[in-house]
Amino acid sequence: MAGKKKSAHASIEAMYRVFTVPEAPDSTLSRVDQDISRNLAGFLQEHIVAVERDLSEVEKNFAESAVPEKPIFVSEQAQFLLDKLVANSVHTASPSFIGHMTSALPYFMLPLSKIMIALNQNLVKTETSKAFTPMERQVLGMIHRLVYQEDGAFYRKWMHDPSHALGAMCSGGTVANLTALWVARNHAFPAEGSFRGLHQEGLFRALKYYGHEGAAILVSRRGHYSLRKAADVLGLGRDSLVAVDTDNDNRIDTDALRDKCLQLQKQKIKVMAICGIAGTTETGNIDPLDAMADIAREFGAHFHVDAAWGGPTLFSREHKHLMKGIEKADSVTFDAHKQLYVPMGVGLVVFRDPALASAVEHHAQYIIRKGSRDLGSTTLEGSRPGMAMLIHSGLKILAREGYEILIDQGIDKAQSFAEMIENHPEFELITRPELNILTYRYCPDLARQALAVANPLQAERLNTALNRITKFIQKTQREHGKAFVSRTRLEPACYHHFPCIVFRVVLANPLTTADILRDILSEQQQLAKEEDIRDEIEILHQHARITLAEHNPKARQA
Amino acid sequence: MAGKKKSAHASIEAMYRVFTVPEAPDSTLSRVDQDISRNLAGFLQEHIVAVERDLSEVEKNFAESAVPEKPIFVSEQAQFLLDKLVANSVHTASPSFIGHMTSALPYFMLPLSKIMIALNQNLVKTETSKAFTPMERQVLGMIHRLVYQEDGAFYRKWMHDPSHALGAMCSGGTVANLTALWVARNHAFPAEGSFRGLHQEGLFRALKYYGHEGAAILVSRRGHYSLRKAADVLGLGRDSLVAVDTDNDNRIDTDALRDKCLQLQKQKIKVMAICGIAGTTETGNIDPLDAMADIAREFGAHFHVDAAWGGPTLFSREHKHLMKGIEKADSVTFDAHKQLYVPMGVGLVVFRDPALASAVEHHAQYIIRKGSRDLGSTTLEGSRPGMAMLIHSGLKILAREGYEILIDQGIDKAQSFAEMIENHPEFELITRPELNILTYRYCPDLARQALAVANPLQAERLNTALNRITKFIQKTQREHGKAFVSRTRLEPACYHHFPCIVFRVVLANPLTTADILRDILSEQQQLAKEEDIRDEIEILHQHARITLAEHNPKARQA
Repeated sequence: MAGKKKSAHASIEAMYRVFTVPEAPDSTLSRVDQDISRNLAGFLQEHIVAVERDLSEVEKNFAESAVPEKPIFVSEQAQFLLDKLVANSVHTASPSFIGHMTSALPYFMLPLSKIMIALNQNLVKTETSKAFTPMERQVLGMIHRLVYQEDGAFYRKWMHDPSHALGAMCSGGTVANLTALWVARNHAFPAEGSFRGLHQEGLFRALKYYGHEGAAILVSRRGHYSLRKAADVLGLGRDSLVAVDTDNDNRIDTDALRDKCLQLQKQKIKVMAICGIAGTTETGNIDPLDAMADIAREFGAHFHVDAAWGGPTLFSREHKHLMKGIEKADSVTFDAHKQLYVPMGVGLVVFRDPALASAVEHHAQYIIRKGSRDLGSTTLEGSRPGMAMLIHSGLKILAREGYEILIDQGIDKAQSFAEMIENHPEFELITRPELNILTYRYCPDLARQALAVANPLQAERLNTALNRITKFIQKTQREHGKAFVSRTRLEPACYHHFPCIVFRVVLANPLTTADILRDILSEQQQLAKEEDIRDEIEILHQHARITLAEHNPKARQA
Repeated sequence: MAGKKKSAHASIEAMYRVFTVPEAPDSTLSRVDQDISRNLAGFLQEHIVAVERDLSEVEKNFAESAVPEKPIFVSEQAQFLLDKLVANSVHTASPSFIGHMTSALPYFMLPLSKIMIALNQNLVKTETSKAFTPMERQVLGMIHRLVYQEDGAFYRKWMHDPSHALGAMCSGGTVANLTALWVARNHAFPAEGSFRGLHQEGLFRALKYYGHEGAAILVSRRGHYSLRKAADVLGLGRDSLVAVDTDNDNRIDTDALRDKCLQLQKQKIKVMAICGIAGTTETGNIDPLDAMADIAREFGAHFHVDAAWGGPTLFSREHKHLMKGIEKADSVTFDAHKQLYVPMGVGLVVFRDPALASAVEHHAQYIIRKGSRDLGSTTLEGSRPGMAMLIHSGLKILAREGYEILIDQGIDKAQSFAEMIENHPEFELITRPELNILTYRYCPDLARQALAVANPLQAERLNTALNRITKFIQKTQREHGKAFVSRTRLEPACYHHFPCIVFRVVLANPLTTADILRDILSEQQQLAKEEDIRDEIEILHQHARITLAEHNPKARQA
């Protein structure tokens, strides 16, 4: 008994140390901290993308499935993380990592993040966040104003109003889109007469009460997959996400959109929401938002704009005209960890009408009581970290001018890179950049000449070979680890909508230079000469020669 | 034109600096970093909860709604944050902050968090996370094993299997519960014959096809509000969350649960899911999970356990018996930012059957393609930060033994505090702690004597007065800022289910001592003597005296 007591006392002592701020500047923890900082600085300065190592090799370091019984020292775990985790991570900050929307961060985000972590506030409620709540409300207000341009009086009235919220903070664009469509769905089937509203009675009774056979969300074929996920989560079913055709520039065809709405109406399916995209994930195009807003109004549909990528284009005096009509949206998604350059894990949705979020309002007795300023009552998530602090810091430190430079530079760079590709004999530009995203593929001159005259069958053969080669180049380049472009599949109209595998490039890192882009192309050109792809290249050349010869018998004779 | 070019060049230079690691150890940014560290150490060592300042005062610092035009220096923003944000934050780490589930963090979480922020990985996909993905899979595996105790072979087979996931990482318990119920809903209405599944065709057609009038989720009255939110989001409607009565210890009444299931079945309402709670938010009680599992099996319902709070009780050899039956759950929610002591913003759900998550699987061409190891295909969220790294670090550095100490200490302390309250003449223990949560209220001896003999009308009068006083004490104590307990409303059986306002205490911070708890009670006792509440105290005493006198005429005469 005495032994048990003594050991309990020792344990309490140990825990006391673990939870206490170390006072000595030369404590072990301070040394660990310095080691980490040095190592991270080295990591961030590396210009490679990743070391070549198979994931199944890496998995061996993470194979144990039981929670260890005995504690280890912090220094031991820190060393493990530096050796096994950091060393095998992707250098998303590398200027040659241009394949995804995760980019470098402004360095100041690192020291400022410490404040967020150390304070460990919970934004669900002011009792656990205090000043963070007004700050979050301000961030929502600033983005709201950027989008909707209401006057100062509007924000003085609504920004800090306890019973309203100009938007909702989320862990990312997916939850932001889901929140917007959740609001739209509940708003489309409100309480009326004996019906207490979809939020209360559910979708089944809502459709029965209002005499609909279903409810649809319309978006272009280039819509983000999170919208289909949202249609599933919300109980509408993935089929209810209706994909509308695009024009040759990957923007929604508004005639097709209107036709589809009419058709759904005839089938007694409620046109619940129309989603415009401001920066498609794969090609960076912006839908004709203004025209879409009119169609949404015509059909009484909620108009949502997914500006997860393109939202910050509004900072650019030169390019913001592309976003015309966004101010007519009922809701707009922004992703802060994309072009607001904030660390991973934060997005938001703003609502034009401050009363709109009430469609999803929730309260609880021990928390977020009615009338409190708490922002947790209209967020999908409960406990949330104070990421708004980092958005606030970005908006203050970079300011509109800084974000404008980032946006303008990215678009300029994408245009230069597009030119570089167009002038290159072995590559073909597939989508011209409207923002800072473009796609292209391996396609040597000979193949291009052949494609220009090929019949559908010949074109299919050529494109199939080109697909294999482009895929090989992309995978091998990623494995080599010096640079990274991603790949996707598009159905270009010029190739009769045959699925073409393309390289996808996102130019959001201001450290990416024209030289780096030139090197990436050169490496790809070299990879096309590798042994492993030689047969496929040979097949491509054969198909191209046959196609050209059949088209031009004279060439065959020669 | 030359001018524009020159200024563009200057801007590029400026951005280059913003995104580059500062090399000089005495750079401005290094100084800012050191200032922040010093300030945060001071903040974390403070034992107060918050400075007394009205939120509307604080809002004045966050009143501007326009994004500023011109950049400011990092040092300026850092100073602003320290003065206006940090100084007005809640000391969630303070040992006298015992009102909510947000507690102190082990200090090592701070230096380790830097790794996560600096690397800025995106866990949606291995291309942007590499080693973080196996690490996340390991964390899911460890929690899965803690809950389900499968053998090593099971985890060797499934943990890193590309086409399966043992669980899903989430931003918190709310999304974890939502994910579990999303899986349950889709699983309850699968594809069959001509029907392509709820996930595809939606809830309306699913119910029609299967001939149901609705689908219900059953949980005790003490269920977390996120479950009702989930019922709304999923399109079932808030009514479909059926609240079942509890016994006197706030645990679900299993007879009432079974009756309710039978009743729903008769109404042709599908019993879609039964949720057990392992650690109710308000009172910290654990449902009889084993018996609930049997009922769920009987009705073919998904059995989910919300162990957001209580999950880590499994680390304690002394207390884990309370969780018996959790291993029969189809899914279990854990919140890492609660009793795994990880910074805000991470929870997870584990699934007993590794194939279960496929009910919500999503793919996209440019990302999370089929067959990849990416964990993004079965998470509700898209882009996600590498928080798993911090869970991993907690599990390694504290290990089972460390978490056991934390759990055991918290429960011990709650029991001591309960004793302290019971022996106090002015307070009444309302719920006895099963874990480390308890509730009590202001209720002096005289009122207690009166309540013991009061008729319903008298009891209502007494309780109404007690509610006002308890609420006043809680609010005033919070405003004074030395300590914080939260408050909620319970309907104790002993008071005929009259709504009683109670103090709610969560004892998760290992630095909270018996002395601190004694001080908190003393302060509350003092607050009951304040001028502002004197009238209410007088009313209470009058009601008590009248009640006692009416019950005992002799006392009246005396």
